[in-house]
Amino acid sequence: MKKIGLITSGGDCSGMNACIRSAVRTALRMKIEVVGFRKGYLGLMKGDEIPLDSKAVSGIMHRGGTFLQTARSPEFRTLEGQKKAVEMLKEKDIDGLVILGGDGSLSGALALHQLGFPVVGIPASIDNDIPFTDMALGVDTALNNIIYAVDCIKDTASSHARAFVIEVMGRNSGYLASVAAIASGAEYALVPEREFDLSEICQQLRQRFEEGRDNAIIILAEGVAKGEDIANSIKDAIGFETRVTVLGHYQRGGAPTVFDRLLASRLGKSSVEMLVAGNHGVMAGLSCNNIIATPLDEVIRGAKRPQDEMLRLAEVLGI
Amino acid sequence: MKKIGLITSGGDCSGMNACIRSAVRTALRMKIEVVGFRKGYLGLMKGDEIPLDSKAVSGIMHRGGTFLQTARSPEFRTLEGQKKAVEMLKEKDIDGLVILGGDGSLSGALALHQLGFPVVGIPASIDNDIPFTDMALGVDTALNNIIYAVDCIKDTASSHARAFVIEVMGRNSGYLASVAAIASGAEYALVPEREFDLSEICQQLRQRFEEGRDNAIIILAEGVAKGEDIANSIKDAIGFETRVTVLGHYQRGGAPTVFDRLLASRLGKSSVEMLVAGNHGVMAGLSCNNIIATPLDEVIRGAKRPQDEMLRLAEVLGI
Amino acid sequence: MKKIGLITSGGDCSGMNACIRSAVRTALRMKIEVVGFRKGYLGLMKGDEIPLDSKAVSGIMHRGGTFLQTARSPEFRTLEGQKKAVEMLKEKDIDGLVILGGDGSLSGALALHQLGFPVVGIPASIDNDIPFTDMALGVDTALNNIIYAVDCIKDTASSHARAFVIEVMGRNSGYLASVAAIASGAEYALVPEREFDLSEICQQLRQRFEEGRDNAIIILAEGVAKGEDIANSIKDAIGFETRVTVLGHYQRGGAPTVFDRLLASRLGKSSVEMLVAGNHGVMAGLSCNNIIATPLDEVIRGAKRPQDEMLRLAEVLGI
Amino acid sequence: MKKIGLITSGGDCSGMNACIRSAVRTALRMKIEVVGFRKGYLGLMKGDEIPLDSKAVSGIMHRGGTFLQTARSPEFRTLEGQKKAVEMLKEKDIDGLVILGGDGSLSGALALHQLGFPVVGIPASIDNDIPFTDMALGVDTALNNIIYAVDCIKDTASSHARAFVIEVMGRNSGYLASVAAIASGAEYALVPEREFDLSEICQQLRQRFEEGRDNAIIILAEGVAKGEDIANSIKDAIGFETRVTVLGHYQRGGAPTVFDRLLASRLGKSSVEMLVAGNHGVMAGLSCNNIIATPLDEVIRGAKRPQDEMLRLAEVLGI
Repeated sequence: MKKIGLITSGGDCSGMNACIRSAVRTALRMKIEVVGFRKGYLGLMKGDEIPLDSKAVSGIMHRGGTFLQTARSPEFRTLEGQKKAVEMLKEKDIDGLVILGGDGSLSGALALHQLGFPVVGIPASIDNDIPFTDMALGVDTALNNIIYAVDCIKDTASSHARAFVIEVMGRNSGYLASVAAIASGAEYALVPEREFDLSEICQQLRQRFEEGRDNAIIILAEGVAKGEDIANSIKDAIGFETRVTVLGHYQRGGAPTVFDRLLASRLGKSSVEMLVAGNHGVMAGLSCNNIIATPLDEVIRGAKRPQDEMLRLAEVLGI
Repeated sequence: MKKIGLITSGGDCSGMNACIRSAVRTALRMKIEVVGFRKGYLGLMKGDEIPLDSKAVSGIMHRGGTFLQTARSPEFRTLEGQKKAVEMLKEKDIDGLVILGGDGSLSGALALHQLGFPVVGIPASIDNDIPFTDMALGVDTALNNIIYAVDCIKDTASSHARAFVIEVMGRNSGYLASVAAIASGAEYALVPEREFDLSEICQQLRQRFEEGRDNAIIILAEGVAKGEDIANSIKDAIGFETRVTVLGHYQRGGAPTVFDRLLASRLGKSSVEMLVAGNHGVMAGLSCNNIIATPLDEVIRGAKRPQDEMLRLAEVLGI
Repeated sequence: MKKIGLITSGGDCSGMNACIRSAVRTALRMKIEVVGFRKGYLGLMKGDEIPLDSKAVSGIMHRGGTFLQTARSPEFRTLEGQKKAVEMLKEKDIDGLVILGGDGSLSGALALHQLGFPVVGIPASIDNDIPFTDMALGVDTALNNIIYAVDCIKDTASSHARAFVIEVMGRNSGYLASVAAIASGAEYALVPEREFDLSEICQQLRQRFEEGRDNAIIILAEGVAKGEDIANSIKDAIGFETRVTVLGHYQRGGAPTVFDRLLASRLGKSSVEMLVAGNHGVMAGLSCNNIIATPLDEVIRGAKRPQDEMLRLAEVLGI
Repeated sequence: MKKIGLITSGGDCSGMNACIRSAVRTALRMKIEVVGFRKGYLGLMKGDEIPLDSKAVSGIMHRGGTFLQTARSPEFRTLEGQKKAVEMLKEKDIDGLVILGGDGSLSGALALHQLGFPVVGIPASIDNDIPFTDMALGVDTALNNIIYAVDCIKDTASSHARAFVIEVMGRNSGYLASVAAIASGAEYALVPEREFDLSEICQQLRQRFEEGRDNAIIILAEGVAKGEDIANSIKDAIGFETRVTVLGHYQRGGAPTVFDRLLASRLGKSSVEMLVAGNHGVMAGLSCNNIIATPLDEVIRGAKRPQDEMLRLAEVLGI
């Protein structure tokens, strides 16, 4: 293996830069040349490359997002697009590709593998919905961003008689919402994995308020419902103001936490070592403190277990 | 003056606790007794008091919000309510009252003054819309909270081809939005003090995107428009995804900055000194690094100058 | 089990309050009464107790340190002191005790267990030197505090031609230093687990500086050497200024990270469940994402494996 | 004026990058070309220049330090060195120079002015010891860094019976120490501007400890004494452990606060406008919320007033 490529794909997350840095430095130590392609599969198909030497990845560890940028590419979802990418990789004399991204990006990685090109995937998605890794890159930073905001809102909540609905990311996964609820001491986490009865919650809140506990935090996973709608229902039920905060893309960025920098550094190093060892078509993941390789087709077929323990813990410690 | 009272009223902000602490410690040094009333004018009318000794205000400097809590009181807006408050103050043998809050709260302070009760007001409102003080309490902390979030969002913005609309507080004041735009390097600040042509902005954005500058941050002051509506207009114009973040009450809370702790400490100390010196019916404000007293009726009649310099600076440094 | 006690012992760390909160709320749900003793074993022997109801642990999740306080107690190290503690526990009708602390505190827990009193220990020590738990409470927060400071220092380092020696905690463990080095991109981690040749390091630094890479960060574990001495050696070798920062107790405190809040919540809940289930004389620890119980005598006899992978990773990614 | 130069000199501080960005964008709007010289006067004499277009200063607002770097230059302190710098400026067709730095750097600016070259200085020094500006660039960020650390240490202090000595920067100025003491609620600020009697302080601390207030924070300005020595004296007097933290260069860096970004943006813009308007040989400073120009010789001859109000406030609110 003389030359490898790197792309970041799908939604960006904190830790991508630290991971690129680690992969590049590991490869350079092995005398392997490295290039990055801009804007994920889109740039890969176009051959929009950047040479990555030690200096190119200096001073990027602590920066959020991805300096290689990322983008969507409908074309790459077609077989034709995938073949175009493989041709470009061969034209550039690239022997292996490391792909950072979420489930869509890893499906793309599997497609390249099935076309015979050596790839290793790295799970990077703040939703933490990728199986075969205890944590995906970016999750820990997103959670700490969320909690910083919720702690601030709690200051206001405890100064007023008010309920607050805080909408967090997560797509189909309630992981961010349930862990954020535990870590902030929120009263409720509304997540897609578990049904809830809003009228019952409103009744409990009214009872709490009558007992003098006159503020409440509800963490809402996006996709469950509109924050505005939940807030209106609560307001009607308890007669008090209920405010909505939509944290949005604030959750994705910022300097990565130590957990994400360390995970990024380990995944970046291992992904290159896997490529060199001929361990292709796999995703490097974190399992019981070790970095392991899982075949990409198992990753794509698999499903993350629902976070039952988290949801129970949120309940015990919440209301 | 043997005994003074303290209330926090209106929207809470960071620095209120530090201000209470300073007022209490200053009074205690002068052998003056201090009590606080819970929930602003509402608790004042009810006589819901807490004795404030040195220990009661220990360890609160760095906490956001107000441990005295705050609330709205329609009753206090009536002359009857105001007289009830004065009677309660007399019943409790209180010789003077320090009131922290925004313009509504300071109007209430003026009402008490006009009924002959000695009061001193302290400007506390993240909107920075109170005249006769260079900065109100809580503004600096709110701005730093906003910028922390916008910096995070910029990481994502620079990783994608996207525009982001970030809605910040400020009611009728564009101060938070315009300073946040300058301090984050945002492309636009949309504020109530200045008209803007959304179709022109969309055209400029489209041109920028065609030139390769494929991301943009628009800071939107609440009240100007709904973030969602602005985002949809931009999306239609530029054909790219445009995301909305509504920072909401996240802006209010959190550990106060050094600026707010220092301002709080100075205002708290001066407010007690003014009461003791017989300088009543005034607001303690910051003017050219000094704490000055301005009659409350001038404060209520006055209007904060629009932030022309800030808006110009935002323009020069933005797009 | 009708009544349980709680103490925090040894050095404080972030997450202790969140852990107390979780243990208390879990016990209350099981209709078990809870008391805390102030200042660890010292207060326990004196019977210096605080009743812990749901309100007593409200609003403490996000606060560093321990509101139960902690202290050293030479008396408790004697058999007499330990018997005194058991008598006090019986006098107070306490059926079981949860002890948060580092290895010294867990030795104390074992002593109480050997005297027949039901105890469960919780590993809380920023040094991460306790075996049978993947992470101890407080480590993640300490690491993030360290990295926040090192990131700041790197701004200055990259603006000047200078070397910086940053001394971090860890007693006999190089965990904090080696992970901090990886996560900050430091050039060197000097740790007690691995010998190093300072003159060789100086020579490498001189060579780097001659090649134009004119700044360097050296993370020094306390106990290895005095920061001042290392700095002087480097200065003599490279002829440039070398500055020292001793982060000291800054590392211990601050709002706990999400990782520490979640770990604290899980350990607190499990410790009470273990006591109730008759699973005594154990430490609740984190192993492969599960909370497990390990007999305290194994914990005390055991030794944390040196962090070989971390040290290698620091080397590959550093100089 | 067709082309201007920019240098950052002396100790770095947060906000320098934001200031460079503002000066560059202001100049470009006026169709003026801009170059920066690396490493302050050292690089200026060598002609080590970087062209600064809009893109070169993009994405640097929130980064600490100075990407133009800074260095000491003994040669520039000589008349010969200064003449060399002026020749280089003329050789490069530069019509005016903006210089960011502390008092030493501004003395250098005055020297160039006296040789007839148009310069404008910008006060940038965390020590806040430069006259004719209410605040220098970097002070607010440094203070917030300090307070973040002191808040963390207070968590530990309140968990133990201990005194903590925290050494902060400031050279001959006690500004950082006294404001940090007020904003953190520290018991003492030891500063160069005011004599103190350590044995009296020790006696007060012993008395406090006997009354049950068993922890204390002492903020020590560097230069007053060694932290270690103060700590040993206190330890001997009170018989308890006293720990030292030397915050060092941690204070200088990190993302600038909003105050520093705004001040930087205003100073950068005004410095270019002053150059263009022929207002040379001056320093742009902040006075009562306005940016004013003060002749550099007045700045150099002047002295910052001692911070009497701050010291009194620290006393009232401290012990």
